[in-house]
Amino acid sequence: MERSQVHNFAAGPSPLPTSVLEEAARGLVNYQGTGMGICELSHRGKEFKGIISGAEADIHSLLSVPDNYSILFSQGGGTSMFSSIILNLLAAHRLSSSNISLPASSYTPPNIDYIITGSWSSKAYSEAVRLCSPSSTSSPTYAIPHIAANTKPTGYTTLPSKEEYKFSSNPAYIYYCENETINGVQYSLSDEFSFPFDMIPSHIPIVADYSSSFLSRPIPHLNKHAVIFAGAQKNLGPAGVTVLIVRNDLLVDTSLAYSKGGVIPTPIGMEWKIMAENGSLYNTPPVFAIYVCALVLKELVRNGGMEKMKEINEEKAKRVYQVLDKVETIEKMKGVVREKKARSWMNVTFEIIEREEDFFKGAEERGLRQLKGHRSVGGGRASLYNAVGLESVDKLCEWILEFSRV
Amino acid sequence: MERSQVHNFAAGPSPLPTSVLEEAARGLVNYQGTGMGICELSHRGKEFKGIISGAEADIHSLLSVPDNYSILFSQGGGTSMFSSIILNLLAAHRLSSSNISLPASSYTPPNIDYIITGSWSSKAYSEAVRLCSPSSTSSPTYAIPHIAANTKPTGYTTLPSKEEYKFSSNPAYIYYCENETINGVQYSLSDEFSFPFDMIPSHIPIVADYSSSFLSRPIPHLNKHAVIFAGAQKNLGPAGVTVLIVRNDLLVDTSLAYSKGGVIPTPIGMEWKIMAENGSLYNTPPVFAIYVCALVLKELVRNGGMEKMKEINEEKAKRVYQVLDKVETIEKMKGVVREKKARSWMNVTFEIIEREEDFFKGAEERGLRQLKGHRSVGGGRASLYNAVGLESVDKLCEWILEFSRV
Repeated sequence: MERSQVHNFAAGPSPLPTSVLEEAARGLVNYQGTGMGICELSHRGKEFKGIISGAEADIHSLLSVPDNYSILFSQGGGTSMFSSIILNLLAAHRLSSSNISLPASSYTPPNIDYIITGSWSSKAYSEAVRLCSPSSTSSPTYAIPHIAANTKPTGYTTLPSKEEYKFSSNPAYIYYCENETINGVQYSLSDEFSFPFDMIPSHIPIVADYSSSFLSRPIPHLNKHAVIFAGAQKNLGPAGVTVLIVRNDLLVDTSLAYSKGGVIPTPIGMEWKIMAENGSLYNTPPVFAIYVCALVLKELVRNGGMEKMKEINEEKAKRVYQVLDKVETIEKMKGVVREKKARSWMNVTFEIIEREEDFFKGAEERGLRQLKGHRSVGGGRASLYNAVGLESVDKLCEWILEFSRV
Repeated sequence: MERSQVHNFAAGPSPLPTSVLEEAARGLVNYQGTGMGICELSHRGKEFKGIISGAEADIHSLLSVPDNYSILFSQGGGTSMFSSIILNLLAAHRLSSSNISLPASSYTPPNIDYIITGSWSSKAYSEAVRLCSPSSTSSPTYAIPHIAANTKPTGYTTLPSKEEYKFSSNPAYIYYCENETINGVQYSLSDEFSFPFDMIPSHIPIVADYSSSFLSRPIPHLNKHAVIFAGAQKNLGPAGVTVLIVRNDLLVDTSLAYSKGGVIPTPIGMEWKIMAENGSLYNTPPVFAIYVCALVLKELVRNGGMEKMKEINEEKAKRVYQVLDKVETIEKMKGVVREKKARSWMNVTFEIIEREEDFFKGAEERGLRQLKGHRSVGGGRASLYNAVGLESVDKLCEWILEFSRV
C-alpha cells in the first residue's frame, strides 16, 4: 500500500509527516552531501551539534521556554523519567538550604505527591513506592509517596474536581500527567478541569508528564512547572529519545546529596546536572531519533507554531467527539470519557457496544489503522497527534457513522 | 559527495553497510508495503515483534550463545550499563544463598573488581566508586570497588601480564573491557594477553564490555562470562540501543534485594529481570535502532558469520599495522600500542610525529574521514569496524606511505 492510502491512528509510536520521513531517509544514506549517513557521523562533529542545538532552539521558541530552564535530550523513555525525577528531586530536596546542613540522622524523608488520573500517573506513583519505600523495615525509606488525588474509582473517566485534591504539607514535589494516553483524559486549558496551580505554594516543584500532548498546543503556565518531560514517539519523533525541560535550580550534584546521607545514589546517566553541563552529549545520544525530532520541529515552526497546531488539533478532536456523541444516542458506540471538559484532544477512547470485531475489520478495509485501545482497557482509541491530518479524521468519522448506520 | 568516494574510519557512531542503510531508508517511509514507516508501527505489533525476535535469534546463532543466557536490548548506552551492572549484580549477590537470610546489619558489602586497561574501564570503575562508596561516612557503603590491575602507568599502551592481576577474595563480580576504543588495546585470542579466565574461580561472575568489538569475531569463552554488553554504534547499528547478554541466574528481583537491606534501589528501566520477562518490551524500545541492527545481523549471517568476519578483520588490522611499523623506522608515524599482541583489531591508534595537521588535511582530500584520535588522547585513530572495507583500508595505507614518503 501507499502511505496516502493509510490513516494511522496509533497511540505511539505514531505517524510522522511524510515529508520529514522522506528527508530523513535521504539523510540516513547521505547527510547533506557528506557522503556519510547521519548515523555514521560523530555526535561531536559540527553536523550533529548543529542538529541538536537547532532542536533545542526550536523547542525553546515554540513553547516560549524561559531562559532559566534547560532543554535536555535523554534516553529510556517516560519509564526512566519516572525514576530520574525521584532521584534528582530528592537530591535537590536534600541539598536545599533548610536541609543541607542536617546530619543524615536528623534528615526526615519528605512527602512526594502524586495525582493519579490514569495508567501512566499510576505507574509513576508505583515507581515512587518501589524506589523509596521498601516493603520491609530492613532498608531505609527515602520518601513518603502520597496520593494527592485519584480518579481510579471512576475508571479514569474524568479528572479530580478542585475539592478532591489533598496535597500533603510541604512535599518535595507534586507530580501529574497532563494527558493520559491510555484512558483519554486530559487537563483542560481553562475551567474546572484545568490543573490547580493556584492551590500549590510557588516553592513546591511541579512535575508534569507531557509525553502524549507535547507540542500539540501551547503549555499553559509552563513557568509554574519545575520539570516537564515527554517521550518523543507521539508528536515529536521516533521512539528512543525523551525531552526534558527542567528549571536550572533543580540541576543538582546527586553525588554530593548521596554523601550527605538519606538519598538514593543516582546512576550517572540519570543525573540531570551532568546532562545539562554536557549539552545532552555526556555519552553517545540516540542520534537518529534526535535528527528526526529536529526535522519535525523545523516543520512545526514553518507551519505556524503552537497556536496553529492548537487550532487544528482542537478541530480534529471536536469532529471525532461529535460523531461519537451522535452515535451514542442510538447505542452503537460511545466515548469512554463522560466528562466532556476532561476529554483528551490527543487520544479519543471509545467503546464499541456491539460487533466490535466488525468495527475494526471495516476500519482496516478503509485504511484506518491502529485503532484498538490499549490492551489493558480494550475498546477503541483514535490518537489524533499532529501528523494525523483532517482528511484522516474525516475518514474515521465517516466510518463511525456508516458502522452505526446513522 | 557520493558514499563511494568516502572512507569512514569513525570510532562510533561508525559506518554501516550501504545496502542496509538503503533498505532502512525504504522501511522508514513504508515498511514492507504496510503504508506506514517502521517508526510509525506499534512496538507490540507483529511487524516489530518479528524484527526484534529475529535480531535476538541472529545474535544467538552468530555468537553461539548458550540457552541459559538471555539477549536483551536496552537504552542508555554503555554508560547506563556501567550503573545497571552494579545495581543488578549487587542485588544478585544480596540474594545469593549465602546472604539472603542475613539481616541487613550482618550483611557485609562485597568487593567488586575492576581491571583498568583504558578510558572505558576507567569510567566503569569511577561509576562503581560514585554509586557504592560515598565520600563521607554519612551514607552507607554498598560495595568496595577494587582495582585488580591497572595499565594507566603505561599510558594504556599494553595489557596486564598474568602476574599483574591481583583479584580480591570472593568479589561480587570481576569487570573488564575487551577492547578499549580510545586507547587501541584489545585482549588477544590466545597468548599472554588473553583474558585470564583460568585465574578466576568459576562461581565469580565475569562481566565484559564488548562495545567496540562485538560481532567482529567470535567471543572467546562466552560461556565463562556472566554478562556481556555492547553499545550498538560500532559494528551493529545506530546509536541508541545496547545489547546485553546475561546469564539467567543473574536476572534477579532488585526490589526484593532492596527490601532485605544493604543494596541500592534500582530504577525500574534498569532491572534486567523485568527487561527479560518482557522480551525487552517493558516500555517502548528504540524501534528504529533495533530495526537497523536486525538488518545488519541478517547481512552478517548471509556473509558467513563470525569466522568470516574474523578473517577479514584480522587482515584489515594487519595491513594498517604493517605500514605503521614500516614508517616508524623513518620516524614519521608510529602505532601507539607498543605491545603487538595487545593491539586492537578494531581501533588502530597512532601518533603523527610531525606535520600532524597536514596528515589530516591530506586524508580529507583523499576521502579518508573521521581519523582523528579521541579528544582526550589526540593523535590519529583508524577504526576498522565491520562496515569498513578492505579497499578503504588500502586507501588509508597508501596515504600513510605517501605522507611518510617511503
